[in-house]
Amino acid sequence: MASTSKILLGLDFGTESVRALLVDSHGVELSSTANSYSHGQITDRLPGSNIQLPALYALQHPQDWIDSSAKATRSALRKAKIQSESVVGVGVDFTSCTMLPTKRDGTPLCLLDEFSNQPLAWPKLWKHHGAVKQTEHINKIARARNESLLNRYGGVIGLEWFFPKILETLEHAPKIYRATDIWLEAGDWFVWQLVGGSADSLPRSTCQAGYKGMWNATSGFPDRAFLKAIHPEIENVVQNKMPGRLVSPGVAAGELTQSMALKFGLQQGTPISAAIIDAHAGVPGAGASTPGTLVMVLGTSSCHMLNSDVERNVPGVAGVVKDGILPGYYGYETGQAAVGDAFDWLRRLAGHADFNVLSKGAATIPPGADGVGCIDWFHGCRTPLMDGNLKGAFYGLGLQHRPEHLYRALLEASAFGLRWIVELLREGDVEVRKFIATGGLPHHNPLVVQVYSDVLGESIMVHPSKQGPALGAAILGALAAGVFSSSSSAIRAMATPKTGEAIIYKPNRSHRKTYDRLYGEYRRHGDFLSQ
Amino acid sequence: MASTSKILLGLDFGTESVRALLVDSHGVELSSTANSYSHGQITDRLPGSNIQLPALYALQHPQDWIDSSAKATRSALRKAKIQSESVVGVGVDFTSCTMLPTKRDGTPLCLLDEFSNQPLAWPKLWKHHGAVKQTEHINKIARARNESLLNRYGGVIGLEWFFPKILETLEHAPKIYRATDIWLEAGDWFVWQLVGGSADSLPRSTCQAGYKGMWNATSGFPDRAFLKAIHPEIENVVQNKMPGRLVSPGVAAGELTQSMALKFGLQQGTPISAAIIDAHAGVPGAGASTPGTLVMVLGTSSCHMLNSDVERNVPGVAGVVKDGILPGYYGYETGQAAVGDAFDWLRRLAGHADFNVLSKGAATIPPGADGVGCIDWFHGCRTPLMDGNLKGAFYGLGLQHRPEHLYRALLEASAFGLRWIVELLREGDVEVRKFIATGGLPHHNPLVVQVYSDVLGESIMVHPSKQGPALGAAILGALAAGVFSSSSSAIRAMATPKTGEAIIYKPNRSHRKTYDRLYGEYRRHGDFLSQ
Repeated sequence: MASTSKILLGLDFGTESVRALLVDSHGVELSSTANSYSHGQITDRLPGSNIQLPALYALQHPQDWIDSSAKATRSALRKAKIQSESVVGVGVDFTSCTMLPTKRDGTPLCLLDEFSNQPLAWPKLWKHHGAVKQTEHINKIARARNESLLNRYGGVIGLEWFFPKILETLEHAPKIYRATDIWLEAGDWFVWQLVGGSADSLPRSTCQAGYKGMWNATSGFPDRAFLKAIHPEIENVVQNKMPGRLVSPGVAAGELTQSMALKFGLQQGTPISAAIIDAHAGVPGAGASTPGTLVMVLGTSSCHMLNSDVERNVPGVAGVVKDGILPGYYGYETGQAAVGDAFDWLRRLAGHADFNVLSKGAATIPPGADGVGCIDWFHGCRTPLMDGNLKGAFYGLGLQHRPEHLYRALLEASAFGLRWIVELLREGDVEVRKFIATGGLPHHNPLVVQVYSDVLGESIMVHPSKQGPALGAAILGALAAGVFSSSSSAIRAMATPKTGEAIIYKPNRSHRKTYDRLYGEYRRHGDFLSQ
Repeated sequence: MASTSKILLGLDFGTESVRALLVDSHGVELSSTANSYSHGQITDRLPGSNIQLPALYALQHPQDWIDSSAKATRSALRKAKIQSESVVGVGVDFTSCTMLPTKRDGTPLCLLDEFSNQPLAWPKLWKHHGAVKQTEHINKIARARNESLLNRYGGVIGLEWFFPKILETLEHAPKIYRATDIWLEAGDWFVWQLVGGSADSLPRSTCQAGYKGMWNATSGFPDRAFLKAIHPEIENVVQNKMPGRLVSPGVAAGELTQSMALKFGLQQGTPISAAIIDAHAGVPGAGASTPGTLVMVLGTSSCHMLNSDVERNVPGVAGVVKDGILPGYYGYETGQAAVGDAFDWLRRLAGHADFNVLSKGAATIPPGADGVGCIDWFHGCRTPLMDGNLKGAFYGLGLQHRPEHLYRALLEASAFGLRWIVELLREGDVEVRKFIATGGLPHHNPLVVQVYSDVLGESIMVHPSKQGPALGAAILGALAAGVFSSSSSAIRAMATPKTGEAIIYKPNRSHRKTYDRLYGEYRRHGDFLSQ
């Protein structure tokens, strides 16, 4: 237990930017700085080239991760007026499955002249959807072989996961696949850059491996027979191109190297936790130290996570991983593929520079959006259908409807998607008792939280930290540094909201009946559109 | 046959404005002027009042019709430098069913102080959708009684028709119903104002009565037993509140009164044709003097009309009226409820001031709008479902789609709706050989005509007259004045396009297969949404 205060750094890698959060071991936020990636999401053209990317591609630049996080860290240190030696531990959360091919020494293939004009040599962002056919193929083979690992993933391997993305490269750019020495998650690559060391000892997060890499503590990665059945050339991909050791979040992956210490303005030798998926970091970051609390990390997309004492294979629930989120619990991961992304899409569609008009208008429109309905699959459906090819829809449209109606319908559809997930978990005998919202969205979009509360008929607490995942990462940094003896004591010390700081949204019971009916309509339309 | 040229005036009353066209008996356009109604469509508040109108209301101001058409006529005469005595006949086309309640002397109820703040005392525009429940009720009663008149209307009485609008007033504002001496179509009211005379001799158009008033030359208006079953209080509405005589378009309803001659700058005694529905005027206006030509009047909504030698009751086809469009033929009326209106809705939704970006973008997007589909029922479905309560939809939406994709999908949906109508007619053994597009839309939106041509797999001629209905009205004015001996000779003389003036759109055969598939999707989604 920490009596005197120690300082921790949480690095939270999002889709557009990285955030550095300095926080002490009593949970007092000292400073926080975000830094946007110079290249952002790469969806149109490769950097420094005229190569047009195919639709559904979403790439990133690996140097952005180093440069932006170093800048954000230095700036956070300056803002908090903290000396480098005061920071005793670093935690890292990262989007996933964001992954890349590298050479044996860790050099990303895309940074070699030979490959820089090859799209598939670049890191694929989590939302890159180029592996549609490969995912179908892997699922077909897995079902045909009755692979037991399917049970852990609700019966479906996801379009955004690690092995579909590997297979995509093999099939579309075999030269790149063959030139690749190491396939790894971006979060793992980043931590490896911080701690150095050989390829054989590079730290791979059990969280990323478990949720996105079909890995399991008992059986490891998929076996050779399954991989061979998928494609002969990937039979040995785990042995030959996936070196390293599995390390759990909250365990030190290593210590900061001298060169990285210089770059980040930190002390050489500082312990660095193994990476965790950004959304999953939101669970400790939201102060959820006990089972049965659904932590909803709401952002570009949404991840809804839950720790439970029981292991249940719930059809459609994307992953249940033992110790996947916190030690000692079964971690359930569910999600919605487009949330803030879809809101922003609608904003652009309506030609608005910001959300002022839409939010104000939607708030005055009654539940049901005057007849407009929506299916929120603008980037596919993650939980429970696990189908990245599904598409969004609006229905009930009349000439009297304005963008505000479509926006309200979209918010409601997002809430219905969440309700579907909660009902699935409960029907699958997994208790869901409490609801905490975190991530960026709940803080600047109170309407969405109220609609979620009304549609669920449940109270929702918005955790006061505007940096839930970053705080979660810092907590893991504290654990890696040995500041606390247990994850629950770390979470309680660092992430319990102070009295009055958490906002509680209570459901408006008078809307319940309307939303029950509209939820039925949502499911009916969803059934038709997913036939 | 006219050897020396005579001058005719066509008055074309649209939803927002009226057009006056001066044309000679050889079809040479002399001048054309439009004048917008001062009060436009009244959808928010009654003029000079703060009374908020319910949703789905669309009213007009009767004085606008007189004032705007007089202004337009005077201006057209000035532009063409024509003396009042040169105009030998006047034809009138009007939106329908636009209708109003008046006192015995023709004074609209809404112009009496006592009623001016009562929404239902005002003329209801064709698109006024306040009679949803009344239409359901009338259809229920008609089906229960197995009324044979249903066969003439594809089995369904429309939400926008005459008797549902009467019943709406009786049920929502019985005082207004009781204070009404005369119910009549706006086009008939206008012609009555021009020619004067008593209520008992007021001219009612057989076109309006046949298509919108359930009237038939053999059986007349609905009988008392049917009306009594609908509502006891309307049992005698035809006898007591619908005086007048039925007059066919092209037959003189009377001669211009002295006071109206002064107001319009025309000669007292000029023969005035009975009114015709605006869309139906497009048939002679488009030079279609022979059967088997589908005349597509494309505008705010679309009307697709066809003269045929045969009488067939085609399920879903809204009306077949003997001599309803041209003497000697069975006139078939079909339509799409929202076309230009829906395009404009999407433009506003996307925050665009005009169609430049949307049109340019949609033209470069391939058939199928990159996966976006649409159901074009933004104002209900007219033919064949005759259901004003149906709503529009977009499906196949992804984050990559822009307003241009939705616009293209909407154009294609509109084309699929048309294809459905053509297939219905052909399956019902009504020949459709040629396609002529007229109305405002084809002249400023070439893309929609090309998409229609591609989806139908048929050539479409765009008639060069930008005032098809106004020209049709002028032709009827010529007939009323006895300038020609037959409608076909009048149409040939006045509306045959000069060589090179008509634009022919030919179908791009390479798109056929894609559109066949997408049409199947459209029908599948339409079936689901109309369940």
